[in-house]
Amino acid sequence: MAVLTEKTFPMYHENMDDSKLLWTEKSRRKVLETPIFDVNEIERESTDGRAGTFVEIATPRWINVIPVFTGTDGQRYFVMERQFRHGSQSVTLEFPAGLVEEGEDPREAARRELLEETGIKAGKLTQTGFLNPNSAFMATGGYFYVAEDLEYTGERHFDPNEQIETVTISEAEVFKKLGKGDADNGIMLVSAFLYLRFRGEI
Amino acid sequence: MAVLTEKTFPMYHENMDDSKLLWTEKSRRKVLETPIFDVNEIERESTDGRAGTFVEIATPRWINVIPVFTGTDGQRYFVMERQFRHGSQSVTLEFPAGLVEEGEDPREAARRELLEETGIKAGKLTQTGFLNPNSAFMATGGYFYVAEDLEYTGERHFDPNEQIETVTISEAEVFKKLGKGDADNGIMLVSAFLYLRFRGEI
Repeated sequence: MAVLTEKTFPMYHENMDDSKLLWTEKSRRKVLETPIFDVNEIERESTDGRAGTFVEIATPRWINVIPVFTGTDGQRYFVMERQFRHGSQSVTLEFPAGLVEEGEDPREAARRELLEETGIKAGKLTQTGFLNPNSAFMATGGYFYVAEDLEYTGERHFDPNEQIETVTISEAEVFKKLGKGDADNGIMLVSAFLYLRFRGEI
Repeated sequence: MAVLTEKTFPMYHENMDDSKLLWTEKSRRKVLETPIFDVNEIERESTDGRAGTFVEIATPRWINVIPVFTGTDGQRYFVMERQFRHGSQSVTLEFPAGLVEEGEDPREAARRELLEETGIKAGKLTQTGFLNPNSAFMATGGYFYVAEDLEYTGERHFDPNEQIETVTISEAEVFKKLGKGDADNGIMLVSAFLYLRFRGEI
C-alpha cells in the first residue's frame, strides 16, 4: 500500500493508443422498437479474444437550449419548463429540449422547439457542445445551445402529450438548485456545465 | 412580438403547484429484459383527460467517483479510466463508475468499484449528489462521490468483459477536455458540475 502520486498510473496524453481497447462488431439485431428509442443487441469481440453480447439504446438525436436574458434588475434569468417526466415519474424543472426530426438541421430543431414550447424567438443561438448522455449504452447524443436576444411571440404549440408550464428563474438560483429536488435531471447539469464554459467561468 | 423580460412568464418559486401536471399510472408491463436494464411500458392519464403510453428504462442504481489527489507539483490530479464503451462505440475517458449491487449501500459500492477497477483505497469519500441521468425515460439514477486521501494497493480486479486502462490527468486538463472528443460522456459533466460545487467554485 502506497500513497498515490502522479507516478502511480501513466499520465494521460492526447495521442494514447486505443487499438488494444477496441471491440469489433460481429453482428447486431434489433430486439425492441418503441416510439422514442430502439434497443439493439450486438455481439462484439475484444483484441484479447473475449466475446460478449451488449445492448444499446438508439434514440433520435435531440437538442437542449438555455434561453437567457438580462432582467430589468441587471440579473441574468433563464426561461425553464416544468412538466411531468415519465422516466423519473416527477415534475421537473428543465431547460427546453426536444428531438431533432429526420433530415432536420439540429440548429433549426433548437429554434423550432424553443418557439413551439415557449413561444420564444432567439436572435442569437450558440452551440455549446454535442454529447452522449451515457456512453455505456446510449448510441447517440444531443446538441446543446444557449439562446440570447429573446423575443416572445405570445403563442405556444405543444405536441399531443406535452403539458408544460413555462417559468422564469434567475441564473444564480438555478445554479444553486441543479442536482437536487425537482432539478435532478442530469442532462440539465450537462447543459449548465457547458454554459459555464460558454461564459468563460471554467 | 415583444422583448422578453422577467414579467413574460411566472417567476419560479419553491412551492409551485404540481397537482395539475401529474400523470397517473393506470397499468404497466415489462416489454424487454436485458442484462443491464429492463424496458417497461406504462399507460398514464393526465389531469385534463389525455391518455398515453410511455416507455421507461429501469437500470440498477449506479455510482460515479472522482478520485482526486494533489501531486508533488502542487496541482490537483484525477485518476480516470480509458475503455471501449459499447453505447458510443468509442474509447472514452471517464471517472470510475459501476453498478450498485442488490442490497448494497451506494457508498460501499463506490468504495468497492474504486478498489476493484483502480486498486485505490479512499481515506475520505464525500457524496456530491444523486441524479437521474435523463428524467424523460430513465427510471432511476446514480450517486456521485469525490474520493480523497488515496492509497494504491497495487491490485486491480475486473469483471469478465471489463478492459480498462487507468490514467492520471490534471484537473485543469479535464475541465478543458470535458464535452469533447473522448471525454464526451454526459455523466462525466454531471460529475464535474457537482465537483465544482463541492469545491465551492459555483
